[in-house]
Amino acid sequence: MSQYWSHLIHGLTPYVPGEQPKINNLIKLNTNENPYGPSPKVLIALQKEASESLRLYPDPNSDVLRKAIASFHDLESSNVFVGNGSDEVLAHTFNALLNHDKPILFPDITYSFYPVYCGLYEIAFETIPLNDSFEIQVDDYLKPNGGIIFPNPNAPTGRSLALSEIERLLKTNTSSVVVIDEAYVDFGAESAVGLIKKYPQLLVTHTLSKARSLAGLRVGYAVGNPDLIEALHRVKDSFNSYPLDRFAQAGAIAAMEDKAYFEETCHKVISTRTHLVKELTDLGFEVLPSGANFIFAKHTKKDAEVISAGLRDKNIIVRHFKKPERIAQFLRITVGTNAECAALVSELKQLV
Amino acid sequence: MSQYWSHLIHGLTPYVPGEQPKINNLIKLNTNENPYGPSPKVLIALQKEASESLRLYPDPNSDVLRKAIASFHDLESSNVFVGNGSDEVLAHTFNALLNHDKPILFPDITYSFYPVYCGLYEIAFETIPLNDSFEIQVDDYLKPNGGIIFPNPNAPTGRSLALSEIERLLKTNTSSVVVIDEAYVDFGAESAVGLIKKYPQLLVTHTLSKARSLAGLRVGYAVGNPDLIEALHRVKDSFNSYPLDRFAQAGAIAAMEDKAYFEETCHKVISTRTHLVKELTDLGFEVLPSGANFIFAKHTKKDAEVISAGLRDKNIIVRHFKKPERIAQFLRITVGTNAECAALVSELKQLV
Repeated sequence: MSQYWSHLIHGLTPYVPGEQPKINNLIKLNTNENPYGPSPKVLIALQKEASESLRLYPDPNSDVLRKAIASFHDLESSNVFVGNGSDEVLAHTFNALLNHDKPILFPDITYSFYPVYCGLYEIAFETIPLNDSFEIQVDDYLKPNGGIIFPNPNAPTGRSLALSEIERLLKTNTSSVVVIDEAYVDFGAESAVGLIKKYPQLLVTHTLSKARSLAGLRVGYAVGNPDLIEALHRVKDSFNSYPLDRFAQAGAIAAMEDKAYFEETCHKVISTRTHLVKELTDLGFEVLPSGANFIFAKHTKKDAEVISAGLRDKNIIVRHFKKPERIAQFLRITVGTNAECAALVSELKQLV
Repeated sequence: MSQYWSHLIHGLTPYVPGEQPKINNLIKLNTNENPYGPSPKVLIALQKEASESLRLYPDPNSDVLRKAIASFHDLESSNVFVGNGSDEVLAHTFNALLNHDKPILFPDITYSFYPVYCGLYEIAFETIPLNDSFEIQVDDYLKPNGGIIFPNPNAPTGRSLALSEIERLLKTNTSSVVVIDEAYVDFGAESAVGLIKKYPQLLVTHTLSKARSLAGLRVGYAVGNPDLIEALHRVKDSFNSYPLDRFAQAGAIAAMEDKAYFEETCHKVISTRTHLVKELTDLGFEVLPSGANFIFAKHTKKDAEVISAGLRDKNIIVRHFKKPERIAQFLRITVGTNAECAALVSELKQLV
């Protein structure tokens, strides 16, 4: 608190990311990282970047990367915007496309960075309650708004919305932007990317942090009509010309190109998730249906805080949000390797 | 232009960075990159990062890097803020510390990103003319303001302001933040970092893109009173929790620690600059005194655009800003290696 702070700063409530503990031998199931490392082709591409060329600026427009992303999705480069993690892409999206006179809409239980962006850009918002099964109900969003955003699958619930429902929303909601945040889509939900050419108000955001095992590299992107993408470029070029360094661009290009490794990794995570859900259900957990690389689960008898603390004592970290009340008894557990999940189940057997 | 764009976007005039051409065998003297690559210790540190650990998020707080920067400047970590290039650090600075009721002040001829940030954050500004010798005059800034920012050495002039003058400004201007942008300070100007403990309104920004040869890695930082640094953290954590990827953190730590390589590189650039200034003067150029890794020069007879185009034909790129009128006849030339500067001088002998 200071006379030197801009007025805005006093009122900000920053986002608090999941803990990144600096301890070894942890089973870290709290921030939805991929249990498998990036493609070997990515590592080779990255090694080449550790060179004298680092004295030179990277390509400010990330042209080769944008082309690789466009090619993966069967789109054009003009449909693609890239940023320093999908968090930066989302920040620019809130500023460039979701800042209008009417309040924007998002679920009451969702990615907790959304209200933080609204604070940063002074955007009014209204939260729409999930139903009792923690599902997004499209009908609740069919009203005047300055924009709509939700993740699919939603976080931290893991529940997916059918593509037909998203299309129903797009058919009705034509005068404001609809952002589908597909950070976790590759683990089992239906992507809306195929609807971009049909709906000019649709923006879809992706990250390379989850399905492409590159949380440490900070690359995310948005795809949409060139008109929406131009707005994002305008705000990016008024903020930081070079958000993606030489490593981020080279690694991300190789990751987008290695489709086989990407698919294999997603398949392994989905397979482990199926097994984990069964085991947790057997232990008395209620597990929401998940299309993501995490599950959201509540034990029928044992308190979530007690379970979370008990696991922590055994060097296993999961995420317990505590608030709001509706999810206070849930734990969000990242799907790890088979061995990590077996260790988790083994400890839970003692705890519950 | 679109109904979907936020009101702000229509009015933005984004920054245009210097050209990053995708042609080989160019002598690239247009974006003030260091002609020497980064320290070999940096390259070793970077190679180690191309590993399975990339599946994990980086440290959101860049604690080790902030400690290394603090140690270099004999400060505490609480005095240090890091960002994705000094452009991101400056963007957050404009939002967090320079957005008040009164207009901020900066020179009429300076880093052209400053008015762009003002557009992005809707900050009123007033430009203060440099004097006829292209110098910043502290007396012109002694009036009510919402903040003051200028580079030292200034860009694109290269002229430095004496530390005693900066301290004179700080003694009088105590009720708003004074930002000294020291992107080029290590090539011959006096740093204001030593004044931080004395003046709580002083923020000094640095980049690793110039003197530390890491333009391709995107790391910048600000040092100041913990109270100013906290404002920057609040806005950063409301925008993007993880702006520095694993490579950026590891490379920057190694670069801050290798003081000997850094000093040797700066010394080589300064030595080449001294020689280049003499040769250009002999060719009929007026060269402003430079404390930077570039010079700002005007030929007494030959038109700047003609010289710039003539060099381009010979695969040598320099930067010609054209506007404002006062600097229309100047060229900004990055100090390259001795061989690059010799090639430049040789071509100029033909041209002028």
